[in-house]
Amino acid sequence: MEKETNQRAHRYCVIMCGGVGSRFWPFSRSGRPKQFLDFFGTGRSLLQMTYDRMLALTPSSHIILVTNSAYKEIIREQLPEVSEENILCEPARRNTAPCVCWAAHHIYAKDREASIVTLPSDHLIMREGEFHRVIDAGLGFVEQGDRLLTIGLKPTTPHTGYGYIQRGEPTATPDILKVKSFTEKPNKEMAKMFLSTGEFFWNSGMFMWRADSILKAFAKYDKEISTLFDAGEKYYGTSREMDFIEASFSHSPSISIDYAIMEKADNVYVETADLGWSDLGSWQALYETSPKNAEGNVTQNSEVLATDCEGTLFASGQGKIIVASGLKDYIVADQGNALLVYPRAEEQKIRQVVNEVLSRFGEEYV
Amino acid sequence: MEKETNQRAHRYCVIMCGGVGSRFWPFSRSGRPKQFLDFFGTGRSLLQMTYDRMLALTPSSHIILVTNSAYKEIIREQLPEVSEENILCEPARRNTAPCVCWAAHHIYAKDREASIVTLPSDHLIMREGEFHRVIDAGLGFVEQGDRLLTIGLKPTTPHTGYGYIQRGEPTATPDILKVKSFTEKPNKEMAKMFLSTGEFFWNSGMFMWRADSILKAFAKYDKEISTLFDAGEKYYGTSREMDFIEASFSHSPSISIDYAIMEKADNVYVETADLGWSDLGSWQALYETSPKNAEGNVTQNSEVLATDCEGTLFASGQGKIIVASGLKDYIVADQGNALLVYPRAEEQKIRQVVNEVLSRFGEEYV
Repeated sequence: MEKETNQRAHRYCVIMCGGVGSRFWPFSRSGRPKQFLDFFGTGRSLLQMTYDRMLALTPSSHIILVTNSAYKEIIREQLPEVSEENILCEPARRNTAPCVCWAAHHIYAKDREASIVTLPSDHLIMREGEFHRVIDAGLGFVEQGDRLLTIGLKPTTPHTGYGYIQRGEPTATPDILKVKSFTEKPNKEMAKMFLSTGEFFWNSGMFMWRADSILKAFAKYDKEISTLFDAGEKYYGTSREMDFIEASFSHSPSISIDYAIMEKADNVYVETADLGWSDLGSWQALYETSPKNAEGNVTQNSEVLATDCEGTLFASGQGKIIVASGLKDYIVADQGNALLVYPRAEEQKIRQVVNEVLSRFGEEYV
Repeated sequence: MEKETNQRAHRYCVIMCGGVGSRFWPFSRSGRPKQFLDFFGTGRSLLQMTYDRMLALTPSSHIILVTNSAYKEIIREQLPEVSEENILCEPARRNTAPCVCWAAHHIYAKDREASIVTLPSDHLIMREGEFHRVIDAGLGFVEQGDRLLTIGLKPTTPHTGYGYIQRGEPTATPDILKVKSFTEKPNKEMAKMFLSTGEFFWNSGMFMWRADSILKAFAKYDKEISTLFDAGEKYYGTSREMDFIEASFSHSPSISIDYAIMEKADNVYVETADLGWSDLGSWQALYETSPKNAEGNVTQNSEVLATDCEGTLFASGQGKIIVASGLKDYIVADQGNALLVYPRAEEQKIRQVVNEVLSRFGEEYV
């Protein structure tokens, strides 16, 4: 019991909050992406809710935010209680692997016994108590050995927007199993098959490991990143850490932690869970997650007068009304200086639309 | 020639600018209806453009604005050069007949030889030079006798949103003919027939008459209004005129000048004209009047990125962009705290929608 309490004192959380969230344009803007928005009008942004959720498990001093330097001020404003040294600002966008590697070094320099839960900052989690239980159990599991653990969500629909994890052999810990395989986003038919077997889980992008375990995995599976960040060993946790990062970070390859490590390593486990989760990756994801009226319409934070509309998501800023008629399966999203009226089925094009908006109208619109 | 010049000195203009323009919601709002908007982003509102157009024909002191008291301040702000005594504020909404009758009395009290052109404030006229010629000729015609003259526009499409005027016998003045009949808004088939005969013209709502002629017509064809306003004879043009109007105006029946007089009188003429005219009565009217791109889309004062859209009108406030896909024959109109996404074919419902918006969301939205 005492040992367990001691272990808990070595728990850290890394919240990744540097993404641009362009698939949620025009709500998500490059200057203020999705994670910084009060998405549901609750008074707290997605990042703030992620932070609040972790406070029950670990003190604020053990919560590290990794972001892009562009967002440092927003974070200071939204989480004034987080000390500046816990905000790691990446000087360039290089996907999640370098982010994970830097954060692990940063924490390991302070605490050789650290275990870490790494989380995206922009997900929806409805079952907070269950989340706490799952994280606690997962950290307990990785603290016992050299293990890389990912959370796999029990799928509720044959979603084609998520990657899936196939479970393998069970372990001695309930709900934690070896990973048999990671899959790319499937097509609809494949996704239905995944669902029917009961063996596949949504890849959540939430990870747990000991700091030394993930650094060991980098050394084994991604030499380039490992070498790059190992070179800073004597700077982590010192006043010169940022100088080193400024000089080195942008030389890292841009690669996700899934590709760099998880899909290659042989000590990878999945903790299956039911968290009332959505990655809120897109308007479509929000539509699927949200309660619908009799016509299948979703009203997000807006006042809507809809006639003869079906399957349509309406989202607007505070105090704005939408009057619509005859829309089937649309996204109507109005925010500030931009309005989107787009078929839900084509929402994968929104990223490229945002690029076109940028080139045609300028950065004040994206 | 001298006589003609003398006559011109007795010419007046009445601009009716008290309407609410609800069919143009959400651009037109009850607090600032269509006529007060810079509809085309030219820097001048429709009212200002109407006023500017008349200045070439008559001095500012001869231009009378009849409006609702709610709009007095907007008018003072938009037309600061108009003296306060030339702004007649109706204390209640009673359609156009009482407006015409009051304005005629007001002018007649100042000038027994007055001739008057009465105009809506919210129409589009593209051919300004031709407009000046037509008004000048029309006033010359009514100055010669006891005649009520309306302008009939040469129709370019079988429009079902306008009333039509059927021409009768010609007069000695070119393009001015007796009126054979007025018609209600026709159905499509009827409108096509009207167009093919060449005998029918759009009823513009622009009128010319001598002050004494229209007062005589009220006495003959609408005793109720005539009696009501005759009772103020000794007050018109005096400091007590408004007291009389405040006490009497709201007792008037609410009726249009067409119903009250034009459709009954036997001295009614039409001056046919081609003015590049639209009544801008609705989004549909604006759509039909506006230049279209290859897909038949109209972009009104907005920046638009449209893919796979056809026959759609996009309108937004300055500095706002619209991204849309897959819309066929829609109106997308975004202004301030309201957004409308509505099929063009159903735009006649917009009036009732505005009423519903008022009752559900409150008057700040209409």
